[in-house]
Formats: sequence, C-alpha cells, structure tokens
Amino acid sequence: MDWFKRKRIFLDYASATPVLPAVRQVMEQYWSKNFYNASAIYAAGVSVKKAIEHDRARMARMLGVSPNGVIFTAGGTESDNLAVLGVFEKSLEIIKKPHIIISAIEHPAVTAAAAEVVRRGGEMSTCEVNEEGVISIAALKKLLKENTVLVSIALANHEIGTIQPIAKIGRLLSEFRKTRHSAYPYLHTDASQAPSYLDVSIDSLHADLFTLDAAKIYGPKGIGLLVARRGVKIHPVIFGGGQEGGRRAGTANPALIAGFALALEIVSKDRAKESRRLENLRQSFIESIKTCLPEIVVNGPTVIRLPNIASVSVPGVMTEFILLKLDQAGMMVSVGSACSYDEKISGSPVIRALGKPELSESTLRFSFGRFTTRQDVRQAAQIFCRVACSMVKY
Amino acid sequence: MDWFKRKRIFLDYASATPVLPAVRQVMEQYWSKNFYNASAIYAAGVSVKKAIEHDRARMARMLGVSPNGVIFTAGGTESDNLAVLGVFEKSLEIIKKPHIIISAIEHPAVTAAAAEVVRRGGEMSTCEVNEEGVISIAALKKLLKENTVLVSIALANHEIGTIQPIAKIGRLLSEFRKTRHSAYPYLHTDASQAPSYLDVSIDSLHADLFTLDAAKIYGPKGIGLLVARRGVKIHPVIFGGGQEGGRRAGTANPALIAGFALALEIVSKDRAKESRRLENLRQSFIESIKTCLPEIVVNGPTVIRLPNIASVSVPGVMTEFILLKLDQAGMMVSVGSACSYDEKISGSPVIRALGKPELSESTLRFSFGRFTTRQDVRQAAQIFCRVACSMVKY
Repeated sequence: MDWFKRKRIFLDYASATPVLPAVRQVMEQYWSKNFYNASAIYAAGVSVKKAIEHDRARMARMLGVSPNGVIFTAGGTESDNLAVLGVFEKSLEIIKKPHIIISAIEHPAVTAAAAEVVRRGGEMSTCEVNEEGVISIAALKKLLKENTVLVSIALANHEIGTIQPIAKIGRLLSEFRKTRHSAYPYLHTDASQAPSYLDVSIDSLHADLFTLDAAKIYGPKGIGLLVARRGVKIHPVIFGGGQEGGRRAGTANPALIAGFALALEIVSKDRAKESRRLENLRQSFIESIKTCLPEIVVNGPTVIRLPNIASVSVPGVMTEFILLKLDQAGMMVSVGSACSYDEKISGSPVIRALGKPELSESTLRFSFGRFTTRQDVRQAAQIFCRVACSMVKY
Repeated sequence: MDWFKRKRIFLDYASATPVLPAVRQVMEQYWSKNFYNASAIYAAGVSVKKAIEHDRARMARMLGVSPNGVIFTAGGTESDNLAVLGVFEKSLEIIKKPHIIISAIEHPAVTAAAAEVVRRGGEMSTCEVNEEGVISIAALKKLLKENTVLVSIALANHEIGTIQPIAKIGRLLSEFRKTRHSAYPYLHTDASQAPSYLDVSIDSLHADLFTLDAAKIYGPKGIGLLVARRGVKIHPVIFGGGQEGGRRAGTANPALIAGFALALEIVSKDRAKESRRLENLRQSFIESIKTCLPEIVVNGPTVIRLPNIASVSVPGVMTEFILLKLDQAGMMVSVGSACSYDEKISGSPVIRALGKPELSESTLRFSFGRFTTRQDVRQAAQIFCRVACSMVKY
C-alpha cells in the first residue's frame, strides 16, 4: 500500500488510475485457483462462466441494459473500434457507402477508427466544437445524411473535461431515424472518463452504444466494455470462438471482469460525493494558479464539465519542458491524451479544435482522483506557480 | 496455493493453465504501485515503459527476433486475427483479390478470421490433412496461387497435438516468393500450444509471423503476442494511439506483459525435462486405457506430436455425456477447443477433417501439464476406464 502514502503528487488520473485494493483482492482467486476456461463444460469451468455472467448482470443493471447488451473487450480502445468499425461493417449489408460523424475532439481510438472507415470506402465528417469544446446540435444536424450510420461523440472529453449534450443528440437521432424509417444512424459515446462523476446508464445517455474502460475507474488495465442497446447490430472486430454472443472472440477473462465490475460499483457509489469534493479541489486549484499567473488560459467550460480535469495553457511555454520540470519538482501531470504521444510529440488536436492553435503546444492537463487530497492540490498549485513563473519570465 | 494440492484431477491444460506463483508475484507491482500509463512522459511513466521494453526485449531474444518484431495483443485470438486480417488488408494495397490458405484443422481464431477475409472480398482455400492431422506439402503446393498472400497453419494442433512441418512449409514459401519476385505469401503459424514443448524461435520455425498466448503457458489471460519477421508488413486490427509501433492500439499492459515474459522464460527453461516427463505420462496413460478398453481410437500421430495431448475417441459414446460423468468422478477433461462450444455443442471439426466423422462427437482431449503427476495419470486412467466401460456396455 506504499503508493497511497507516497510523497510525489500524481495528477494524471485521466490517464491511469491505481487498482483499488478491494479490486485487486477480488481478482486474486482467478489467477491460480479458478483459472478454468469459462467455455469448458465441467463444473469448475461452468462456475467460472457463472461468475462472469453474474458480474455481467451486475454491470448491466448499473448501466441500464440487459446482460447481453454488455460486450467485454480488452479496453476502451477496442470498444471504440468495435462501435465504429462494427457498425460500419454491419451497415455495409444495406448501405453502399456508409457515412459516420465524429466530433473534432475525439480520443485517438475513435479518430483512428474513423480514418479506417474512410480507408475501407466509407465517408466521414467531423463536427466542429465551440471554444469550450461543446458540439453544436445545429451543426451536427446539418452533417446528417441519408447514408449516415453512426455518430460517435465522447460523453466527457479526456483533455478538457467538456461534457457533451449526449441525450439531446440521442433524441435528435431518434427523430431522424423515425422520419427516415431507418435503424440508422446509431449514437455511440465513449464514456470512459465519466463513470466516477456521471450517471452512465443507457437511458440517461440516450445512446445506442457506449464505451467504458476499467483502467480509468481504478480497475485493471486490459478490460473494457461496449454497451449495446437491444436491437443494435454490430459486426465483430475480432473473430474466433463464439464468446460474447459472437460479437467478440477470445477467452473470457474472469479476473479482469471481476475487478472491472467491482470498480464500477465503487465509483458509482461514491459518485456524488467525489464529484463535489473534486469540483471544489479543481476550483481552488485554478483560483490559486490564476492568482500567481494571471496570463494562464483555462480551457473548457466552467460549468457542464468533469469535476476532475483542469486544462491549463501557459502561453509561450512548451508543454514538454514544463512537464519535465514539474516532474522534477515531484508532480506528475500530462499533456492531453497519453495515446498518440508515443511516436512524436506534437500539439494537442483538442486545443487546436477549440480555435486556439497557438496554445496547442503549451497546454497541460491536471486530472484529480480518489487519492488527491486538499494538501496535494495546495502543494501542486505552489509547485506549478514556482515552475511556470520561472519559465514565463524566461 | 490450495489449488496445487487439490484432490480433483485437472487434465485440460491445453485449454487453461493456472498462473504460476512467481508469475503472479511479478505482476503484483503493476496493479496499484507502478500503474502509470507507459505513454506518459514523466519519469514514473517512462519507467513503466522501460519495464515493458525490457520484457519485450527478453521475449524477443527467446523468440529470435528484434524487439520491434514483438507485437503485444490481448491474446492468441487477437494475434491470429492480426496475422490473417492484418496481412490481408495490407496486401490489398497491391493485390486486388488476395488469397489465403489455412489448414482444415485450424483453431476457430484462424478459421473465423479466414471467413472474414472471404466476407471482405478475399479468397480462401483449405489444405486437407492426412489421418494423423499432418498437412501434405504437395497438396499445399497445389493450392498456392499468384495472389496467395498468406498461409496460416498452426504449429501444434490444439485438439490432437499434431506438429506440422512448419519449417518445410516456410522454405517452400521462401522459394515460391523468390521465383515470383514477390514479398508474398507470408507464413503464419499459431504456436500457442507449443512453447512448453517446442522451440518457438523464428529461425527454427522459418515462419514470417507467429502467435503466442500467455494463458496457455501458465501466464495470465488477456495477453498474447504476434511475432513478425523484419520487413513483414501488416495493417492493424485495432486503431488508436500509436502503441506497439502503430500496429496495435490500446494502453500497454505492464502487469500482464511482465507475467507473460516470466512465464515464457520458465516454460522454455523446463522444456526438455517437461517434454520427456509428459511424453512418458501420456504413453502410460494411453497404454492403461487401451488395456481396459481396446475399442478406443487414439487420434493424431504417435511420434511427431505434442507430448501433453491425448485425443481419444470412444466409439458410440457421446462426448458430453462421458465428460460430465468424468467430471462427477473428479476428473476435468474437455472436448477439443473450448472456443466454439459456447453457443451449441456439436462435433469436432478437427476429428472430421481426419476422415473420422463418425467419431467427431465421441472424442475427448486429455491434456497434461506441469502439475500433472504420475499418480494423477494412474488415477485418471482408472476413472476413465470405469466410466467409459459402463457407458460402452450400456
């Protein structure tokens, strides 16, 4: 439990979360004891299968769908791919050149899957966002076409915390489907950043498909899920044994699923309290750093937003330099998405989409979480002010 | 450690293996301590990245490739998909209607991926096998065409243990490529069942691509890899962040990777000894059951085979009935592949491909492993004889 008593300040919860001790414990029995293949027909295998189906049902209840609406995958990226490519491929059965719409600030998992749709002969449109990162329903409406099969817009943005009017979009698409007498377009939303702070049941989202990832909610890495509303048809991305109702092949993973289910339960239970607590911490953090550095720009909306993400631009300072200095000073912070920064470091496409290209290489994401204390935030503000001031002056 | 002292006899190691205590231990640090995102640029993230790259390099050395020839996936099924669909999609850039060849006894992960190739407009041929499950090089040669881009044949069959002449096939394809002045066809082999018993380095296999799965070698479920020889080009199956050199998106999984690397190290070290030990156990098992039940049919070759798999048909007895009776008697055995038995139970396609359709619903797979003792095998033979005799008589 050393980590939870650490000295360094971790403010990158939107990128990775430590597995909760209770979650680790619930996974334990599946490594060397109940390791049986859930597809085996002897009792020990059947009991693993039952455990998985029990966890699936628990999660389905929390998410507002029937158990077979929950498809386990290897993570949020695969879930996003299954939604985007799965809907596209399935729709090819009745539509010659399917069209999908994504927002300008999607996670690389959606952006890259959408690019693959285009490579495979589909069409793609990007819906712009306003300076707070909110998409305009009117603009989206204009993009809808006869051949639109999917709209994929993240519930809560991973870099700036903007919450989109997903339910409104869902109702718009419902209407559009009715007037067209078509099953399409579906609405998919990547809700990976949301479950600790927002209700992610299918009714409140009014979505047809949505993505969750255990690794963002204090569960293990390597497990995610895609929720599919009853009647939504998708083609698989991974083919093989008939697991997950034929929608995702590969040996079922009872350990990671058990951890995922418990993690979702825990963050759902603590949702209201944690949201209030982190909202307060974020506001006091922003106040503090604005006081010492009035020239910083805080990105994203002030109200309809995730409580735990603060996106801050420091004009004229390169993100990577300040990140490394903050790290040396004992504080872990990130650029936007950890994904896509593997190959080469470039500016944030999200910040550019807000109409602030000049800040796209000068932006930091501070993301708070369960183990962030008031003391951490106070210290973080002090460290940031000291480091940033020295760099701005320079 | 209860499981390792258990009373029930587990003879389904080809389907699932318990995670070794040392493997579990090496994963431990990554759940709640070094949980950082390997793509983060602060020191703690970089150190996770370094650990992953260290493990990748260790595995690459064992597998005879350079580190960037090792692509981590979520398991054997995904690796097989990445090989089959990845080569197919990439080849579309220069070949209009790519053709692939698989054997008649492939795992569902390969069979289903090949079916998807056909759905996407490619061609597929199936290479028959002889009554021992061995493919004929001459037959394969006849199937090769101008547009063949991939041959995918498992190194060791998951149901009957047949080892294929993969190196010979590799040399055949090398020649074919030379005469054609083409990069294609590639050879892919699913080696998931092999590492505990066979050398799986790329040179000894003479393959261009091969699949491994941690869950078959006493590592965790949810992690596999695809080895790609230098210069082999594949298109991704999962799109997003630039992880795994742009060939497989999704947050890297340091815990599962560390477990996988150690598991491969352990089974490689014990390979010769375990192979001899299990070969003896299998032979004495087969002798015993043949003595009491001379009418059984033992499938697969007697010599060039995995030492740990015994495929046994009991003419006239339905597999599921005998499996359930064996289970009640304290013995866990399976039909062939656990995959594909989720939806409905039907006969084994592998046994049918051997030219024994009448036995396809009367076949059991006994698979031995590290914790199988001579005592287990003696007892298993006794139980099997008692149960099977009663059913045959009936």
